[in-house]
Amino acid sequence: MALHRFSPHHYHTAIGSHPPVLRVAPGDTIRTTTVDAGGCDASGVQVTARGNPQSGPFYVEGAEPGDTLSVRLDAIVPSRDRGYSASAVAPNVVDPDYVAALPPGRMSLWAVDAAAGVARLVDPPAALAGLALPLDPMLGCFGVAPEGGQAISTATSGPHGGNMDYRGFRAGTTAHFPVFVPGALLHVGDGHALQGDGEIVGTGIEISMDVTVTVGLLKGRRSRWPRGETEEYIFTVGNARPLDQAVQHATTEMIRWLQEDHGLDAAAAHILLGQCVAYDLGNVFDPAYTMVCKMAKRTLAQVAGGR
Amino acid sequence: MALHRFSPHHYHTAIGSHPPVLRVAPGDTIRTTTVDAGGCDASGVQVTARGNPQSGPFYVEGAEPGDTLSVRLDAIVPSRDRGYSASAVAPNVVDPDYVAALPPGRMSLWAVDAAAGVARLVDPPAALAGLALPLDPMLGCFGVAPEGGQAISTATSGPHGGNMDYRGFRAGTTAHFPVFVPGALLHVGDGHALQGDGEIVGTGIEISMDVTVTVGLLKGRRSRWPRGETEEYIFTVGNARPLDQAVQHATTEMIRWLQEDHGLDAAAAHILLGQCVAYDLGNVFDPAYTMVCKMAKRTLAQVAGGR
Amino acid sequence: MALHRFSPHHYHTAIGSHPPVLRVAPGDTIRTTTVDAGGCDASGVQVTARGNPQSGPFYVEGAEPGDTLSVRLDAIVPSRDRGYSASAVAPNVVDPDYVAALPPGRMSLWAVDAAAGVARLVDPPAALAGLALPLDPMLGCFGVAPEGGQAISTATSGPHGGNMDYRGFRAGTTAHFPVFVPGALLHVGDGHALQGDGEIVGTGIEISMDVTVTVGLLKGRRSRWPRGETEEYIFTVGNARPLDQAVQHATTEMIRWLQEDHGLDAAAAHILLGQCVAYDLGNVFDPAYTMVCKMAKRTLAQVAGGR
Amino acid sequence: MALHRFSPHHYHTAIGSHPPVLRVAPGDTIRTTTVDAGGCDASGVQVTARGNPQSGPFYVEGAEPGDTLSVRLDAIVPSRDRGYSASAVAPNVVDPDYVAALPPGRMSLWAVDAAAGVARLVDPPAALAGLALPLDPMLGCFGVAPEGGQAISTATSGPHGGNMDYRGFRAGTTAHFPVFVPGALLHVGDGHALQGDGEIVGTGIEISMDVTVTVGLLKGRRSRWPRGETEEYIFTVGNARPLDQAVQHATTEMIRWLQEDHGLDAAAAHILLGQCVAYDLGNVFDPAYTMVCKMAKRTLAQVAGGR
Repeated sequence: MALHRFSPHHYHTAIGSHPPVLRVAPGDTIRTTTVDAGGCDASGVQVTARGNPQSGPFYVEGAEPGDTLSVRLDAIVPSRDRGYSASAVAPNVVDPDYVAALPPGRMSLWAVDAAAGVARLVDPPAALAGLALPLDPMLGCFGVAPEGGQAISTATSGPHGGNMDYRGFRAGTTAHFPVFVPGALLHVGDGHALQGDGEIVGTGIEISMDVTVTVGLLKGRRSRWPRGETEEYIFTVGNARPLDQAVQHATTEMIRWLQEDHGLDAAAAHILLGQCVAYDLGNVFDPAYTMVCKMAKRTLAQVAGGR
Repeated sequence: MALHRFSPHHYHTAIGSHPPVLRVAPGDTIRTTTVDAGGCDASGVQVTARGNPQSGPFYVEGAEPGDTLSVRLDAIVPSRDRGYSASAVAPNVVDPDYVAALPPGRMSLWAVDAAAGVARLVDPPAALAGLALPLDPMLGCFGVAPEGGQAISTATSGPHGGNMDYRGFRAGTTAHFPVFVPGALLHVGDGHALQGDGEIVGTGIEISMDVTVTVGLLKGRRSRWPRGETEEYIFTVGNARPLDQAVQHATTEMIRWLQEDHGLDAAAAHILLGQCVAYDLGNVFDPAYTMVCKMAKRTLAQVAGGR
Repeated sequence: MALHRFSPHHYHTAIGSHPPVLRVAPGDTIRTTTVDAGGCDASGVQVTARGNPQSGPFYVEGAEPGDTLSVRLDAIVPSRDRGYSASAVAPNVVDPDYVAALPPGRMSLWAVDAAAGVARLVDPPAALAGLALPLDPMLGCFGVAPEGGQAISTATSGPHGGNMDYRGFRAGTTAHFPVFVPGALLHVGDGHALQGDGEIVGTGIEISMDVTVTVGLLKGRRSRWPRGETEEYIFTVGNARPLDQAVQHATTEMIRWLQEDHGLDAAAAHILLGQCVAYDLGNVFDPAYTMVCKMAKRTLAQVAGGR
Repeated sequence: MALHRFSPHHYHTAIGSHPPVLRVAPGDTIRTTTVDAGGCDASGVQVTARGNPQSGPFYVEGAEPGDTLSVRLDAIVPSRDRGYSASAVAPNVVDPDYVAALPPGRMSLWAVDAAAGVARLVDPPAALAGLALPLDPMLGCFGVAPEGGQAISTATSGPHGGNMDYRGFRAGTTAHFPVFVPGALLHVGDGHALQGDGEIVGTGIEISMDVTVTVGLLKGRRSRWPRGETEEYIFTVGNARPLDQAVQHATTEMIRWLQEDHGLDAAAAHILLGQCVAYDLGNVFDPAYTMVCKMAKRTLAQVAGGR
């Protein structure tokens, strides 16, 4: 149950089997920092190349292929008072014949007041002068080393996690990742002060973060896609294009989870999911899109064997 | 502001320019009944062929191509105490290599207690014996006659609405449809006592309904896809495959709506949408899938010109 | 074996159960005319609204749901000397971030010399002054009335055929369509003097045609998607978005055809198809895309039971 | 113009920046061997783990990011007399509701007679006893190290090439790849004695090969996706899901190529492509699908400036 403080000195824009920067035990807490998507740190200084640079990787003792790593997001706190966002919905998120009507893709600067929990545009268009958005800090991109010796760009996502841009990855949520390599090799980065669903402009409010996570090991529990839980839900994550396929991955993973770990047979799992499932949308900007399949814990609590 | 009571004698399983059964004025309220998706009425008797049979169409005086029809869902109340659902997640909603593991696609019978607001399985698998789900009645399939002389199966959806299976189409919501033909020709049907997101088993809890709607006419306001509003949100609806394209339709329609009717220029609309948009999932079972793009009214209220 | 000459006086831009203009017997030949996609006839006069107007429908005596209609394309001959095409690849056919770079979507005029079998641009950009393209006349849109009382826009396609824009639908090819309504109700239109794969600019060289077809009835032979044969291949057609789904429809239909009518068991059909299948691309412009799955007759001839 | 003979001792199942096994100059020829997709060599002995193991990488002197590497496929010759294939169309290639009807996924053994140029099933189902398929040897998976420090599984494909399973990659074809890292780092593997379009069963006839390639360097010529040429065509390759997106990548790359290197302005390039483009289907089995966009050289030869 140690607390590790770690200040990164270099970063990775591909999630892979890089040499670990720290070895921790299941149950340990890591307090570290992340630069923003553009590689700028808490001082606003660019310290590494852009592209969702990741802190880590962190090696979790005892983690082996076939296990599941849990990552409780204890705290995600903006570490400076300026964030930025893109300002135009991305060409792949609008109708093809509307693309030519998109406004120029300038960056917007936001004043981020972590104490007050509010973000305001620094130089707003007139109509948005009064806009004060509640912060909802999250990690856009994090995950573990993928299988088969791959190193996967932080521009995209997969079974190993990565650039999922799911708003549910906020403090209080616990994420689960399949372990593909010894030590799992956890990477974290790409903090957003807040974000709309889908990250449809290609960014949230991008900002450096102070991040605290506690890792755990679900020994021998096999998962195929990222999973997680919040106070209200358990959830599974599918990452693919088209979104239909992300739905398929997330739904299949939830069916398996309900049957393997929540005490339901196939008939019960399917009936329950059919009438009670909920979906959230992660990223629809990146090469792989993200869909999240959720089941309410209060519903599971009604179910014999459900946990 | 008349109240029309209408008891249907025949039904349509393609939404098109059928002879209207009733002519109403903007502001009028229609109280009618719908059979369930299988064509069974409040007595459980099959009175028409299966396939989301629609009551109507209702002709709205003054509605012309280029207008938008509003349909306030005043009440959607189950009219009997038995509903049914499919019991297995559909093959197109799971990974292709998981399809062979799907359980048999039997129907489940549900006891629907509209007074208590609860549905329970009549013959549950053991694990679900204690399951009591809160009702959330909605219309799965409704819409207006499509353009160009088309008649479109109630198995699918499009710019005219149709089989969207969006849980947000509950009492209290107002739906908007583009008007493609004189009188708009509103069809309603396919009530669900409740439904999971996506209608992933291919049904909600299917049941006959007593339905009350109030129609309105947004004269000269052009829309291209269904829209609507709830107490908390305005929303737009895209219907297409793959889901990516449904996202594109819904998002583009929201951008247009924000600019055309909510007083935002392109720069403001895009920045606002980028960090504040939310999406809900409608149907991922039918030939066209459904995605809903939402903007919170409380956010719009912060915006100069926003309504 | 009668020959029917039919001059259309009105046209349809939705394929559905319209009143037939002519009743023919299986084995009969129909010689008719088609207007171009814009509704202009052999004189270049616009005689009906644009949108792939269809001649017909033709009622085939004895055709009933569950049968398959065959349509041998005997002759497709341009009936005037001018055709037109769009000049820019469509926004949905290029990368979303390339759309803004597309050139303006002007129309190009082509001189079509049916006797010489060549098309030349009337007012070419300099680089194309020497371009002389061999004609390859085809029908872009034809098919039969769809099931369930639907009327489907000639802008799109489905199990009933429609706007498939497949270059293989040239003279010498026989198309097969599932029969969904009594008489099948054959529609024909949308001739192209020639076309690139995919109809990626949204048109071929659009032109009015003299069309001769001979209908046949495969009594009691069930099909689910369009099929056909050329001198070298048998083929099946899937119409859907995304293209992946069109591949699925066409491939599944071919597997069924090989097993139901070509004397192969499942093991043989799958092995054969796996190493010998070929695909052609139809339309990637319309709401539904088209993929064609082919099997060479010379390969089938090697196979016991294969026809 | 040296000839290098190279016998691999280890193999890679992710294409990335591995240490090069050989350094060659532009114009040099490499004669090497590839194991089959399952890791078995010319003796049928499994010498490495399965999964399209790659020989190489080969470092091409002078190749730098922003250049294009050409790889002329001089010879691809089966190096043993037994190959194998999967025997059932893959679940993702048929309709979801047909998956349960797929036959068991056994392997088929083929006798491959490279001298006679024919493959025959070793233990055929009765109907296929007479089947003798002409060989058409090709490389299923080859490419260069991807950008950004990635290592990408040989199960899939991308801008760097990879598992494209395109039948056009046969002897006589020259492939082009964007260079992302110094030396390009060419990998080759996954030979097929023959293959159906789409690799719809997940394999061709998998076999070890003797492979001869000649590399060249198009210095300063930027490409974004694989390209190539045969005697009759130039072509571009898009790798993505859904296929619609692969079409977009390949088509956009062809437009760029026509404008950047074939002397056409936008107007001419679009008109020409619109009426003359052809598409071939690569893989529809892997995580990324492959579509090939082609332009006939005989057509380009008619065009001023066209090469």
